[in-house]
Amino acid sequence: MKKTLLLLALVAAPALAGEGKWTPQQVLELDPAWLKAQGLQLPPKRLWDPKRGTGLLAGAVNVGGCSGAFISSTGLVITNHHCVFSIVQEHSSPQRDLISQGFLATNREAELPGKGSRIQVPRSFTDVTQQVLATVPEGADDLVRFKAIERKQKELVAECEKRPATRCQVSTFDGGLQYVLVDAVELADVRLVYAPPRAVGEFGGEVDNWMWPRHTGDFAIVRAYTAPDGTSAPYSAQNVPHKAEFFFPLATQGVKPNQFVMVLGYPGITFRAMLAEEMAERQARFYPRVIDVYGEYIRILEEEGAKDPAGKIAVASTLKSLHNRYKNAGGQLEGLKRGAIIEKQREAEEAVARWAEKKGKHPEGLRARSELLGRLKDTGKTWEREFLLNNLRAGAKGPTMAVTLARLARERAKPDLEREPEFMERELARLKDQLEREQKNLFLPAEKHLLKAFVRRAQALGPEERIAAVDKHFGPTFSEKDVAAKIDALYAGSKVLTLADRLAMFGETEAQLVARKDPLLAFGLELATEVTALDALKDRREGAAQRLRPEWRRAVLAHAGKPVAPDANSTLRVTFAKVQGYSPRDGVFYTPQTTLSGVVAKHTGQEPFNVPDKVLATAEAQRFGPWKDPVLKDVPVDFLADADTTGGNSGSPTVNGKGELVGVNFDRVWENVSNDFGFNPDVARNVNVDVRYVLWMLDQVEDADALLRELGIRKGPPVAQESR
Amino acid sequence: MKKTLLLLALVAAPALAGEGKWTPQQVLELDPAWLKAQGLQLPPKRLWDPKRGTGLLAGAVNVGGCSGAFISSTGLVITNHHCVFSIVQEHSSPQRDLISQGFLATNREAELPGKGSRIQVPRSFTDVTQQVLATVPEGADDLVRFKAIERKQKELVAECEKRPATRCQVSTFDGGLQYVLVDAVELADVRLVYAPPRAVGEFGGEVDNWMWPRHTGDFAIVRAYTAPDGTSAPYSAQNVPHKAEFFFPLATQGVKPNQFVMVLGYPGITFRAMLAEEMAERQARFYPRVIDVYGEYIRILEEEGAKDPAGKIAVASTLKSLHNRYKNAGGQLEGLKRGAIIEKQREAEEAVARWAEKKGKHPEGLRARSELLGRLKDTGKTWEREFLLNNLRAGAKGPTMAVTLARLARERAKPDLEREPEFMERELARLKDQLEREQKNLFLPAEKHLLKAFVRRAQALGPEERIAAVDKHFGPTFSEKDVAAKIDALYAGSKVLTLADRLAMFGETEAQLVARKDPLLAFGLELATEVTALDALKDRREGAAQRLRPEWRRAVLAHAGKPVAPDANSTLRVTFAKVQGYSPRDGVFYTPQTTLSGVVAKHTGQEPFNVPDKVLATAEAQRFGPWKDPVLKDVPVDFLADADTTGGNSGSPTVNGKGELVGVNFDRVWENVSNDFGFNPDVARNVNVDVRYVLWMLDQVEDADALLRELGIRKGPPVAQESR
Repeated sequence: MKKTLLLLALVAAPALAGEGKWTPQQVLELDPAWLKAQGLQLPPKRLWDPKRGTGLLAGAVNVGGCSGAFISSTGLVITNHHCVFSIVQEHSSPQRDLISQGFLATNREAELPGKGSRIQVPRSFTDVTQQVLATVPEGADDLVRFKAIERKQKELVAECEKRPATRCQVSTFDGGLQYVLVDAVELADVRLVYAPPRAVGEFGGEVDNWMWPRHTGDFAIVRAYTAPDGTSAPYSAQNVPHKAEFFFPLATQGVKPNQFVMVLGYPGITFRAMLAEEMAERQARFYPRVIDVYGEYIRILEEEGAKDPAGKIAVASTLKSLHNRYKNAGGQLEGLKRGAIIEKQREAEEAVARWAEKKGKHPEGLRARSELLGRLKDTGKTWEREFLLNNLRAGAKGPTMAVTLARLARERAKPDLEREPEFMERELARLKDQLEREQKNLFLPAEKHLLKAFVRRAQALGPEERIAAVDKHFGPTFSEKDVAAKIDALYAGSKVLTLADRLAMFGETEAQLVARKDPLLAFGLELATEVTALDALKDRREGAAQRLRPEWRRAVLAHAGKPVAPDANSTLRVTFAKVQGYSPRDGVFYTPQTTLSGVVAKHTGQEPFNVPDKVLATAEAQRFGPWKDPVLKDVPVDFLADADTTGGNSGSPTVNGKGELVGVNFDRVWENVSNDFGFNPDVARNVNVDVRYVLWMLDQVEDADALLRELGIRKGPPVAQESR
Repeated sequence: MKKTLLLLALVAAPALAGEGKWTPQQVLELDPAWLKAQGLQLPPKRLWDPKRGTGLLAGAVNVGGCSGAFISSTGLVITNHHCVFSIVQEHSSPQRDLISQGFLATNREAELPGKGSRIQVPRSFTDVTQQVLATVPEGADDLVRFKAIERKQKELVAECEKRPATRCQVSTFDGGLQYVLVDAVELADVRLVYAPPRAVGEFGGEVDNWMWPRHTGDFAIVRAYTAPDGTSAPYSAQNVPHKAEFFFPLATQGVKPNQFVMVLGYPGITFRAMLAEEMAERQARFYPRVIDVYGEYIRILEEEGAKDPAGKIAVASTLKSLHNRYKNAGGQLEGLKRGAIIEKQREAEEAVARWAEKKGKHPEGLRARSELLGRLKDTGKTWEREFLLNNLRAGAKGPTMAVTLARLARERAKPDLEREPEFMERELARLKDQLEREQKNLFLPAEKHLLKAFVRRAQALGPEERIAAVDKHFGPTFSEKDVAAKIDALYAGSKVLTLADRLAMFGETEAQLVARKDPLLAFGLELATEVTALDALKDRREGAAQRLRPEWRRAVLAHAGKPVAPDANSTLRVTFAKVQGYSPRDGVFYTPQTTLSGVVAKHTGQEPFNVPDKVLATAEAQRFGPWKDPVLKDVPVDFLADADTTGGNSGSPTVNGKGELVGVNFDRVWENVSNDFGFNPDVARNVNVDVRYVLWMLDQVEDADALLRELGIRKGPPVAQESR
C-alpha cells in the first residue's frame, strides 16, 4: 500500500511545489498524498467533485476581470479594493467623499448598488475540443482554420448564452490542445458593503506597487443579490442576498510562516508554453520597446500634467496604467535574466526533443516546433510597425477612439457571428460605456503631444513598414512645426473628443461617419483599415499556431508524464503554496509578514503614505483586539506566499488547508513579474492582505459589529482585557 | 562557589551584551565567566596584563586617526583602504595608476614608503587625575579652571614627549572624573605592502556608504619599520621590520553567524554621558542646522563642479566629506527617534536622581545636574552665530585658511605651553602639511559661491549675534550684486590661494601679515579675533562642565554599581560582540553576511560599482579557493556584528575568541549612526570586511604567495581540487 502511494507521488507530484495554476479537473489528477503532505486537510473531492462538475473552488468568482470569493452563504464577496473602486467612485461626491473616508453599510438597506458591476459564478466546464476542431475544413489554410475555429467558438458561446443571465466563453488550453466551454451565471445586482479609505486600500500607491515590504489593505466587501426566486436579476429593492453554495469562512487565527495556503481565481494570461526563442523575442524586442515607448508617453503626460492642475487629474488614471506596464516590462526583463528562464526553457525544450527523437515519438511535434521557429524568423520585418499599431491605445485617445468608432461602423454592418469578437452585440454596452468613461481622462495638450510622438515614430519607420494613414495626413518625414500644426487642425475640426457627439457617432454607419467630414474620424477610418489588415495577418499567424502548437505541447506533456498546468487563460485555477519570505538580493531577506507598526512607520502624512486618522489612532493606541499575532505581537497586515499567480488573480481568495479564508491576494513582487514566462521558486511570491488586518479594520477601527456577526465572528472582549 | 559566580555575574556583566567601548583596565573588571559565556576563549589577562600594563589589546594600533592591527610579528599592519589611501595616491601617476590598479609589493624592497604616515603603538596608560586636578587653584572661576587643566595637560604631554619617537596625550574620561596620560611609540617608517584596486577598496562609494548590504573590500596592508636596534626611525633603507610583540594571526576559517567577536581600536568621540536635555539640543538645533548648512554647501559645490570638469575634480574630496557629515546628521536624527534614545536617557537620569535623593547620596551630583541644565538654557541666544563660526571650515577655504594663518601668527608669539593646543609646536608640521594639501581642493568659483552663502547667513543673524568682520567687509544686509562684487575683489587682491605665498605666510608674524595688505588676510585677521573670543567663551563653559559633569557621573556610576564604559575619547578600547543581522524595517531582515556573488550582482561597469576585470573574472569563474564558506557556498565579503563602534574605529581589527583576526571594521550601518548617543541593540551593527575576502583577494586574484606565506597561510591546493 505504502509503495503504491510512493509510486503515485512520483508520478503525479509537480516538479516544483509552488508551481502550477491547476485547473479544477487537474486537482483530481494530482496525488492526494502529495496534496495532504503540502497541507490540504480537505479531501480533494471537496475542492472539485467530478460528478457534479463543481466544488469549493467555485466559491471563487470573477468580479469584472478580477477574482473574488464568497465569504458567507448570504452573498458576501471579498475582493480587492481596486476591483470595486468604481462603485466607491460612483457614490462619492465632494459632500460625501467615500473615496477618502471609505464606506461601511451599517445595514442591508444602506448597501450601495454598483452600476455595471457584475459577478460571474462558474456553473459548468464542458470539453468542446472535438466540436471546435471538427469545424475546420479539410485542407484549410491557416486563416481559414483560424476563422473556422473563431466562428465555432462564437456559435457555442451564443448557444450557451441563450439562457438568461449567462456568460460563456470557449477557452483555449495549451495553444489549442483543448477547448473548454466555460459557463457562468452572471449576477447583475452587486452592492458595496465595505470599502476602507483609499489611503488604506491603496496605501503605498505607485511607490510600493510590485514591492515588498507592503502595507496595503487592498480589500473590499460587496454583496451579490438575486431575485427572490434565486435567479439573477438587475438591481431591485425586492432582490434578496444570493445564496452561495460554496464559500470560505474567515480564518480568525490567520496564517503563520511555512503554512500551506491555496490561491483560487481567474489568472489572465501567461506565456510558459512559448518556445524559448519566442521568449527571446519578447526579451530582445518587445519589452525594451515597451520601456521605450511607454516611457516616452509617461514623460509626456507628466510634462503636460505639470502645467495644469486639471490636466494632471485628467491624465492620472492613464499615467497609472502606463506606469504599471512600464514597471512590469522592467520586471520581466530583470526576472528573465535573474531566473535564467529562457535558458531553462531552451534546455527543457531540447530535453523533450531529444527524448522524442530517441523514442521515435511525436514526429509531428518536432516538425511543429521547427515550423514555429522558422515562422518566428519571418515576422521580424514589419515588427516595429506592428508594435506601434498594436499599442495605439497606449497613446493619444482621440485617434484610438476614432479607430474604434470606424471599426465598429464597419463590423456592425456584418451579421453578429461574423464580426470581430470585440464588436459583437454582447460587447457593445461595455464598449459604449468605455467610450463614455474615457471622457474624464481627456486632456487636449497631452492628446496632441502624444499624437505627435506617435507620428514621429511612424514617420521614422522603414520603407517596408509605412503606416499609410500617417503618411497621408502628416507626410513622410517629421517636422516639428508642420506636424504640430496639422495635429492642431485635426483636433480643432473634430467632435470625437466631445462626449455627446462621440456617443452619437457610436450608433452611426461608416457612411454617416464619413459624411461628418470630421478630420480625426477621417484619420481614424484610414488607420482602422490598416489595423483590420494587420488583424487578418495576425489571425493567419494565429491559425498556424493553432495548427502547430498543440502538436508540440502534446510532445511536451507526454515527456513530462505527469500533470502540467496549462498557461493561464482567465479560467478558474488553483495554486498550492506556502507562506514564506525570500531573498531579493545578497545580504537581504524579506520576511513573509508585515505588521501594523510597519504601517505607522511608513506614515508620512503625504500620499501615498497617509494613514487615516482613525486607523492611526487605533494602531498607535495598540488596540489590537484579538487580531494580534502571538509571535509578531502585532496585527499582521500583508503576507507573502509562493503561489503561482498573475494578472487576473487580483482579489483571489487565499485559503488554508481547511478551506478557510486567510487572506486576499493583490499583487506579485517585482522579482516575480517574469513568472509569466517561468516559475522561479527563489522569488515566486504573491502578496496577500492578511485576513486579520481585514478583521482588525472591521472590528477595532470601524466597529462593524453587524457585518462581523454575519461573517460568523463573535466580537472580541473589551479592549482592556484584550491586551493580555 | 556557583553562587559566588552567579553573584559576580549579576554585578559585573554589562546591561546589554554588545554595549560598551571598554578600556583595557575595565576588561579586567568585567566578570570573566560572562566574558567566557560570550565566547572569549583567552583568559582576560591575555587581553590586558595589569602588571605589565599591556597585552594583546595593544596589538591594535593608531594609524593616523584610524585604527589598525598588527597581523604578523614582522610589522605587517592591516587597516582600511581609505586609511592609507594617501600612500597609494602619493605613488600614483598617470603612467602607474596604483589607485585604479591597486598595489602589491612582491618583495620587501618593493614596498612603498608613505610620506607622513605614522603608526602609534600604545606603551603605557597612567592615571594622572590627582596631578591634573591639583593644579586648579582654590576658588578658581571656570575659565581659570579650564586653563589650569589645559596647562597641566600640556605640561604632562611635553614631559612625556621628551623621549624620542613618543606621542602622548592626556585623555579625559567621564567629563573629567579621570584623566589618563596615554603614552605611545610613534613608528615613522610605514610602507605600503598591498592595496586593492580602489574599485574594490571603495566599492559602492557614496551610494553604499553607511548602508547594508555592503560589498566593499575596504582593507589594505602596510608594514612598520624601525631602526635596526628596534627604535623608531624615519625612513631609511637600513631599517628593519618592526618586531610586534602582540599581533593577530589571520583566522582562515573566518566567522559564522552568532559567533563571538571583539573589535579593538581607537573610537573618537561619543556623547552618551550627555544629559538628555543636552542631547535634545543636538536633535532640535544642531543636526537640523548641519543638514541645512551642509546641504546648501553641497548644492553649491555640485552646481559649480558641474560647470567645469577640473572644478569637479577639485571639489570632489570636500564634497565627499560634506556628504558624509550631511548623511550622518540625518542618521543621527532618525536613530535618536527610532531608538527613543533621548527618552531612555531621560528615564535613566531620573532613575539616578530618584535613587540619589532617596538614599541621600551624591547631593553634589544632583546639584551639578541642575546647574548643567540651567546653563544649557543660557547658551541659546548666540547659538546661530556660534554654529556659523564653529563650522567655518565646512565653507569657503580661503577665509578658513586666512583665519588659521592669523591665529597661528598670534599664537606663535606666545610661549609654546600657552598656545591653543592646535598651534603648539608639535602640531605645526601637520598644520603646514594641511595648508599645502588643501591646494588641490581649491576651485575659485566654488570658493566665491560658498563665501557668498556664508555672508548671507551671517548678515541674517539677529542684533545680538552679529559677526563684526562680516558687517565691516560686506555691510549689514545682503545684496547679491554688492556682496558678489566684494567677494570678487577679496579674492582678486589676495595671495592666500597661491600655494607658495600661503606657505610663506605660514612663517610670518601678525605684523608681517598685516603689512601684506592682502584683503582676504585682513578679513581673516578680523574673523580670527572673533573666533578666539568665542574660544574663550567655550573654554569657560568647558571649565564649568569639568567642574560639574564629574560630580553627576559619579552619581550615575554609583547607581549602576557595575562597570560602565566611558564615552569614546580616541583611546584604546575593546567591544564584545556577536556576528548578527538586523531588521532595518518591518518586513525586511538584513542577513549578516554578503558574498562574492553579491559583488558581481552589483557590478554595473560604472563607478562606484565597477568591479575590476581580474576580480570579476576570478569571481565569475568561481575560483573560490579554500575561502568558500561551507554554508554560503561562496566567498564571504562583508559581515555585520553588534560591536559598539564609532568614527576612529575605521580599520579596527575584528578578532575571534582566540585572538585571531576574522575581519576589519570599516563602517556602521545608517540605523546605528546615533549610537554615539545611546546603544540601540536592535540596530547597533558595525560593518566588517571578512578576512576570507582579504585572503581570497591575495590568494586567488593577486597570487600574493610570499605575503600569504609571511602571514602563515599555506597556499591552497590547485583550483580544480578546491571546488569540492
